[in-house]
Amino acid sequence: MPELTADVTIEVPFHDIDVMEVAWHGHFVKYFELARCAALRKIGYDYPQMRDSGYAWPVVECYLKYVRPARYHQRLTVHAVLREYENRLRFDYEIRDAASGERLTKGYTVQVAVDITSGELQFVSPDCLIARVEKTCTA
Amino acid sequence: MPELTADVTIEVPFHDIDVMEVAWHGHFVKYFELARCAALRKIGYDYPQMRDSGYAWPVVECYLKYVRPARYHQRLTVHAVLREYENRLRFDYEIRDAASGERLTKGYTVQVAVDITSGELQFVSPDCLIARVEKTCTA
Amino acid sequence: MPELTADVTIEVPFHDIDVMEVAWHGHFVKYFELARCAALRKIGYDYPQMRDSGYAWPVVECYLKYVRPARYHQRLTVHAVLREYENRLRFDYEIRDAASGERLTKGYTVQVAVDITSGELQFVSPDCLIARVEKTCTA
Amino acid sequence: MPELTADVTIEVPFHDIDVMEVAWHGHFVKYFELARCAALRKIGYDYPQMRDSGYAWPVVECYLKYVRPARYHQRLTVHAVLREYENRLRFDYEIRDAASGERLTKGYTVQVAVDITSGELQFVSPDCLIARVEKTCTA
Repeated sequence: MPELTADVTIEVPFHDIDVMEVAWHGHFVKYFELARCAALRKIGYDYPQMRDSGYAWPVVECYLKYVRPARYHQRLTVHAVLREYENRLRFDYEIRDAASGERLTKGYTVQVAVDITSGELQFVSPDCLIARVEKTCTA
Repeated sequence: MPELTADVTIEVPFHDIDVMEVAWHGHFVKYFELARCAALRKIGYDYPQMRDSGYAWPVVECYLKYVRPARYHQRLTVHAVLREYENRLRFDYEIRDAASGERLTKGYTVQVAVDITSGELQFVSPDCLIARVEKTCTA
Repeated sequence: MPELTADVTIEVPFHDIDVMEVAWHGHFVKYFELARCAALRKIGYDYPQMRDSGYAWPVVECYLKYVRPARYHQRLTVHAVLREYENRLRFDYEIRDAASGERLTKGYTVQVAVDITSGELQFVSPDCLIARVEKTCTA
Repeated sequence: MPELTADVTIEVPFHDIDVMEVAWHGHFVKYFELARCAALRKIGYDYPQMRDSGYAWPVVECYLKYVRPARYHQRLTVHAVLREYENRLRFDYEIRDAASGERLTKGYTVQVAVDITSGELQFVSPDCLIARVEKTCTA
């Protein structure tokens, strides 16, 4: 399995904090996406390149497990790692306190390729993804 | 001036409430948009028809004045009224408590037409807008 | 198992639509929440009553499976059904096209009770929840 | 006038991009807030200190003028500068492309102090703000 990872650091903004003084659970989908896009940029296949390659990659599954809450202005590290790419794109995530390393959240997303012109779901990942993963991520 | 108005009723959702137990001020831009889209649908010129007409209508100005806070699950009426359309599209808004009629927020947005193909700003509203406003809104 | 369900109808707003012309996947966490809050209001235990009872109920797990995309202004029915309540609060969700009934999304959330004063996680749901579920939902 | 400014750099995330391939106009309220909070942290008076001082500072006015659109992954610099503080808190903002310096958006927000216990609006800013501004920002 080629290794593709990315880490992004964020500070929880005021507008993400709910009435219980913690980041509202739905915002972590955004935090995951920031790290996933950073990983995909490393192989030159972020959203604009996806579209140019003729494929959309909708998220078809998303799972989040919340272990500890995140507070206002807390610095978080969001780690994404590629787990599957041959038939679908699966990333796993961990969100940790940037200072202590304590884990707050984990989860995963699954995306599949859809041909933009025909609208057809691809059961095998198109070469434009596979070539990029294998070229960039293996020695 | 042809009269074009719309009212939509919303209930403030939990995910819009901030740590002070009121709707975070930025969410009202969304509430304005719901009423503006409802008004534009009345003349058959909501987002899909805009795009099909060859024009984008970016918001170029937005103003909000907050008089009273909105609370969780409060029912609000968002009222939009067309104020200008010949050279630009200006809507004024009022958000009131749906039960008492007490005013919470007011504001306005201004949009201008941009030719999607050329990217050129239009200093006069295109006929596709003017005809729709004048046909639907005048007796 | 007492039966507790709720259905809410929404129209996908413009500000939830992404560049692929579909509702961005993270927004469905909000749609789930609207139906869950409606269900909890039926037993008199929505957010304000939770807080008054001395317990917070953070979401500790969230899963979403996307079957079909949602489009701008599409009317959706969000259905929530209570699946567990004795030790934790689990709701399952289905989002369908309001007109055709075609299923777009499904998923679940899990919440646990946390004593607001002590911060302690409750491994058994407090009586304030159990009594409300059993009183309202069983004949 | 004491000088209090802050600059924050952001990259426009995918989930802020709308169907016209630009950042949806409502998201700029969040970008303004990031720079305002950074400025307020310089004088030790960000949200947690506001609450501890006994005052909430709701936004009562917000204005945004959009000059050019922001694109996916564009790096933006958000500049906030304090313009009034004696009776109310006014910040002006400019958002520029981080590389070219080209201006995309400008605007302002106005906040007023509200006594959290009594709910009373303060027509003069409380000393806890004035002392912090004058101590930190004047030589």
